[in-house]
Amino acid sequence: MGRVTDTTRIRTVRVREGTLYAGRKGDHVAVEEPLDIRVNGQQLSLTMRTPGHDIELIHGFLHGEAVIRDREDIVEARYCDGAVVDDGSGFARNTYNVMDFTTSRPQLLPLVTKNFTTTSACGVCGSESIDAVRQKSRYTLLRSWAIDPRAILSAARELTDHQPVFARTGGVHAAALVDLEGNLLVVREDVGRHNAVDKVIGWALLEDRLPLRDCFLLVSSRASFEIAQKAYMAGIPMLACVSAATSLAVETAEEFGMTLVGFTRAAEDGDGRMNVYTHPDRLDLSAVEG
Amino acid sequence: MGRVTDTTRIRTVRVREGTLYAGRKGDHVAVEEPLDIRVNGQQLSLTMRTPGHDIELIHGFLHGEAVIRDREDIVEARYCDGAVVDDGSGFARNTYNVMDFTTSRPQLLPLVTKNFTTTSACGVCGSESIDAVRQKSRYTLLRSWAIDPRAILSAARELTDHQPVFARTGGVHAAALVDLEGNLLVVREDVGRHNAVDKVIGWALLEDRLPLRDCFLLVSSRASFEIAQKAYMAGIPMLACVSAATSLAVETAEEFGMTLVGFTRAAEDGDGRMNVYTHPDRLDLSAVEG
Repeated sequence: MGRVTDTTRIRTVRVREGTLYAGRKGDHVAVEEPLDIRVNGQQLSLTMRTPGHDIELIHGFLHGEAVIRDREDIVEARYCDGAVVDDGSGFARNTYNVMDFTTSRPQLLPLVTKNFTTTSACGVCGSESIDAVRQKSRYTLLRSWAIDPRAILSAARELTDHQPVFARTGGVHAAALVDLEGNLLVVREDVGRHNAVDKVIGWALLEDRLPLRDCFLLVSSRASFEIAQKAYMAGIPMLACVSAATSLAVETAEEFGMTLVGFTRAAEDGDGRMNVYTHPDRLDLSAVEG
Repeated sequence: MGRVTDTTRIRTVRVREGTLYAGRKGDHVAVEEPLDIRVNGQQLSLTMRTPGHDIELIHGFLHGEAVIRDREDIVEARYCDGAVVDDGSGFARNTYNVMDFTTSRPQLLPLVTKNFTTTSACGVCGSESIDAVRQKSRYTLLRSWAIDPRAILSAARELTDHQPVFARTGGVHAAALVDLEGNLLVVREDVGRHNAVDKVIGWALLEDRLPLRDCFLLVSSRASFEIAQKAYMAGIPMLACVSAATSLAVETAEEFGMTLVGFTRAAEDGDGRMNVYTHPDRLDLSAVEG
């Protein structure tokens, strides 16, 4: 799987009824490598990520930070020529870990700087973090649709079949965009859960699909403030996560009118359950029994 | 539990044999709030964390970045007086989310800046990330001890009894320092797995226990480069995680002579298993059968 998984030799140790057993075997681990994100030649961020879909990742990341709005804002995206290492053969090899984005408008550069310089504001708290997102976003979330909860469970069930890196390594998160019938539009995996989300939103941006009004974001991980923020910035009205939601994710979703679903657990046989933290009106519960 | 967990009302949805059921109940979520970390009045980092043990968190964070070496490097740690919000009562309330550390030596400030400014180095790759850690660290890891794998499993089993926030919310990670008999020295929980690690290492720094030569770091999460880096900076010779390890965590541990254990799974009945990625010589396998 190229640069996405790596092979390694491990010792296995097992304890059964107090007795130790040991063995050796080959194993797979998820690849984690640095990605140096530059805009107009200036370093913006250094993130650890699983290589692959880097262009989507950076588009999604810049969109989440309100640096870019659509694909036309970027005129060129390229791996830095000078980013080379000697791989022992005496020849220079590009690391493909340094990527430079050129923006179409010079006024995007101050925006970049503004987003990543320190602030002198005092009194930082959760609601200020939410306010900062509100000021950056340009979408409101669509309220006029409802989804059958069984479509959410169906998507969660299907997601596990689209996580080849997780199946091999057990060490990556997945994010997916899902339509209202529960069909997966795109799935991406990464060692960083925020990167997986950036990759699917970057994909949508490159496909000119923003705002994502009639689909939801499904993540294999927990839902934190950062994930809710990225979803809101892309106009996504519902976020469903397999694990828990944090207090600030709940507050953010409540504030922005986003439906937040947690502990989305889908069994193979079609059964399942979920917790709805905010705005349950988007779930079609008209067929509820009892 | 004060500012550590929060209560919320949720809708529960369940599907059984194709039929929808819905209910309502109270639930607990883990608190996530911003922490603005300042050194000598200058903002250094803004991290989302679970409130509590902030002083330990910042000590651990600064130590992992090689900004400070021991507790004497910090002469004062205080919540910023000006960091207030109006809570609706008309009175200003401190957010306890902005903390300023004053260093004892002026030369620590350039170090701070150096660690957080952008670099112009090209050719970024995993081994360069490892080299950067090597240059910052001042410890080598002790090789002269061995641990019975059953002590690791015993600690992993005990850890679950010391995760009250996880038990209530299912939404936080835990980190622990464990001695060679498997006894937990300290456990901390946080919505961010790196924060939980910073908190236990910060605790050890404040207890004058660095380098941590005769204990290991146990984390409920995965092991990434960042976690391996923090452990190495504190002189910890073994890192055990409950979930997977990334490629760069494996490379880092291999390079620095750290034993890296993953998929540490301990059943209630005493059985269990683990994968050893690097330097298995610290595991006492003399009692192995078969």
